Amino acid sequence: MSEFLVIPRADHDALVIRAYEARGYSTDEATEGAKLAAEAARHGIRTHHALKALHLDHLFGSAIGGCVPGAEIEVLPSKFAASERWNANKKLGQSVAYRAIDRAIELADKFGIGQIAVDNTFHYLWGGGYVMEAAERGYYAYTNCTSTLAEVVPFGGKFPTLGTNPHSWGIPTTDVNGFPIVIDWATSTVAMGRVQALKREGKQLPPGAAVDANGQPTTDPHQVAALLPFGGHKGYGMSLINEIFGGFIGGSLPTIRGREVKTPGEKTTTVFYFQVIHPDAISGGNFAHGRSQTENLKAVIDDILGHGNDKAMLPGQIEADARKRSDAAGGILFTPAEVAEFNELATELGLPVWDISKLQEA
Amino acid sequence: MSEFLVIPRADHDALVIRAYEARGYSTDEATEGAKLAAEAARHGIRTHHALKALHLDHLFGSAIGGCVPGAEIEVLPSKFAASERWNANKKLGQSVAYRAIDRAIELADKFGIGQIAVDNTFHYLWGGGYVMEAAERGYYAYTNCTSTLAEVVPFGGKFPTLGTNPHSWGIPTTDVNGFPIVIDWATSTVAMGRVQALKREGKQLPPGAAVDANGQPTTDPHQVAALLPFGGHKGYGMSLINEIFGGFIGGSLPTIRGREVKTPGEKTTTVFYFQVIHPDAISGGNFAHGRSQTENLKAVIDDILGHGNDKAMLPGQIEADARKRSDAAGGILFTPAEVAEFNELATELGLPVWDISKLQEA
Repeated sequence: MSEFLVIPRADHDALVIRAYEARGYSTDEATEGAKLAAEAARHGIRTHHALKALHLDHLFGSAIGGCVPGAEIEVLPSKFAASERWNANKKLGQSVAYRAIDRAIELADKFGIGQIAVDNTFHYLWGGGYVMEAAERGYYAYTNCTSTLAEVVPFGGKFPTLGTNPHSWGIPTTDVNGFPIVIDWATSTVAMGRVQALKREGKQLPPGAAVDANGQPTTDPHQVAALLPFGGHKGYGMSLINEIFGGFIGGSLPTIRGREVKTPGEKTTTVFYFQVIHPDAISGGNFAHGRSQTENLKAVIDDILGHGNDKAMLPGQIEADARKRSDAAGGILFTPAEVAEFNELATELGLPVWDISKLQEA
Repeated sequence: MSEFLVIPRADHDALVIRAYEARGYSTDEATEGAKLAAEAARHGIRTHHALKALHLDHLFGSAIGGCVPGAEIEVLPSKFAASERWNANKKLGQSVAYRAIDRAIELADKFGIGQIAVDNTFHYLWGGGYVMEAAERGYYAYTNCTSTLAEVVPFGGKFPTLGTNPHSWGIPTTDVNGFPIVIDWATSTVAMGRVQALKREGKQLPPGAAVDANGQPTTDPHQVAALLPFGGHKGYGMSLINEIFGGFIGGSLPTIRGREVKTPGEKTTTVFYFQVIHPDAISGGNFAHGRSQTENLKAVIDDILGHGNDKAMLPGQIEADARKRSDAAGGILFTPAEVAEFNELATELGLPVWDISKLQEA
């Protein structure tokens, strides 16, 4: 059997929407959750597709009150015209993030730059998905968030007090190199999921990626108690930035975030930060050889990847390749094991299962 | 003799201002150049003090037309209220950067966030200095720029097509931890200056920091032809961001930047990007246990550095310690060799030299 089976997008979305609705989410929320899950799978982001999203929701979300179906976003009053402050009231993260990107684009259209700070949030899964969408619509977009659990040790320390705290940038370069450049990564050297995978495979971690229970460096996945930031003190700084946004926006202590805490008046929620820039607002309007802004960016990118650097890649290339493969297959690609899991979900929901023998292979 | 001698700030500034003026800079420009140089030395940034700044100006700046004394900043028309586009016309970088930070603060006061994109710039030396000043005034500030020369190989490539492209963030945390957190680094693993120093000391580079003329990894400083980005593909992404701003704002090809190019219509200048955020604009206004925003950020920072992480440091701590030492000594600290170099400069300018035997030691 082939590695992947092709699920038509409409079939995927219908099932995932029903799954979210069965947990109490509104049709809008369910649709936004299904959209992000479909886009993640379409771009080969196998860590954040629908099965993962629903599992996460079950562990930390609607089942235990970490995420509240049907919650309404409160837009708090702001005296700053290019900035909004939102209280997400633990609404589904994907819904909040798509709406924040839409609104930040409106602000950028008017002010050249716009920002949305969101308090009381629940995991938006794949930051790259939101900034990629903004980039496809022609905008430079950025988001960061505080991660649910503190799993990362500050540079020079020994106890995990930082989230894996991701940053995501989307750059409108479809007309430049055929796809939006998307820079999207966690600030830990590796993800905790990678440690689990290495354990199963009987492999070692790269040096400098993790520490044991005594805060000592280890490459043995069985000994890993916490992760280290990528790139030493520089990656530590990048992780700290998300905690600083957390402190400014409204998150409480990193070490209690996402944990069960009964103290009255305490907060264990994450925060989101979004920023969108209109490229016209940062154009000096005077490019060499009479180039347009897009032509100029293309000349820069071609120069970077020229000079024998053909093995260097632009961030977002792997996602763009996966998307091309999905789109050529006419659907979203899942492994047979994943399709079987979707079928279990369908059965639980009383829906017809997908006939694996009739699915197209890719 | 002690490691450092103390030069009173007024004496330092008078000499440096005269040095800039002797090269044709206006009194305003000379004063801004002296200020940044004094602040760099005060904070222990020995790579960007006055002697280095004047040397850089001699090599790449006013002596050869890379920087134009007395140039005027043109503020280009913008239809975006929170954004400005400037043509620096190769004005002294320090003057441009101080003014951009001032203006971005005004925009942030009104819009919550403000950005200034600057084309046709000349080296601003120490990005950390500008964002630190904004942070001391209570703002979250960020700057990046394209570096003069392409010395860094893209991840997976072999030829240097990226600048060392620094990023600098200043966070208003003086009321939180006693000094502004300043995250400020180049996106190369090490600086080219560090390679030269290792060569002199007969030492090796850390692995993964540089490549030889064939694009192969090397730890031998004598074989180094180009640098690598810090943190693998993640640091590469951070370096790419500056080139993308370069492409949007108005820089031409990275590999010709800062080089002598006679092609008509070509550009070899760098760009600057500045952004300032008003902390009130991103406050959710609802902090655990009724904390203020500042108290909340303090609780977050204390949590990160707690739990036995007393050996972890906040970015900006080293600079804050150097500043405390300078301020306690009542001046700016230079080595005897540096003071001797200042005295050569004074002699060239026909000014009285500093009497080393009478200078206070620190």
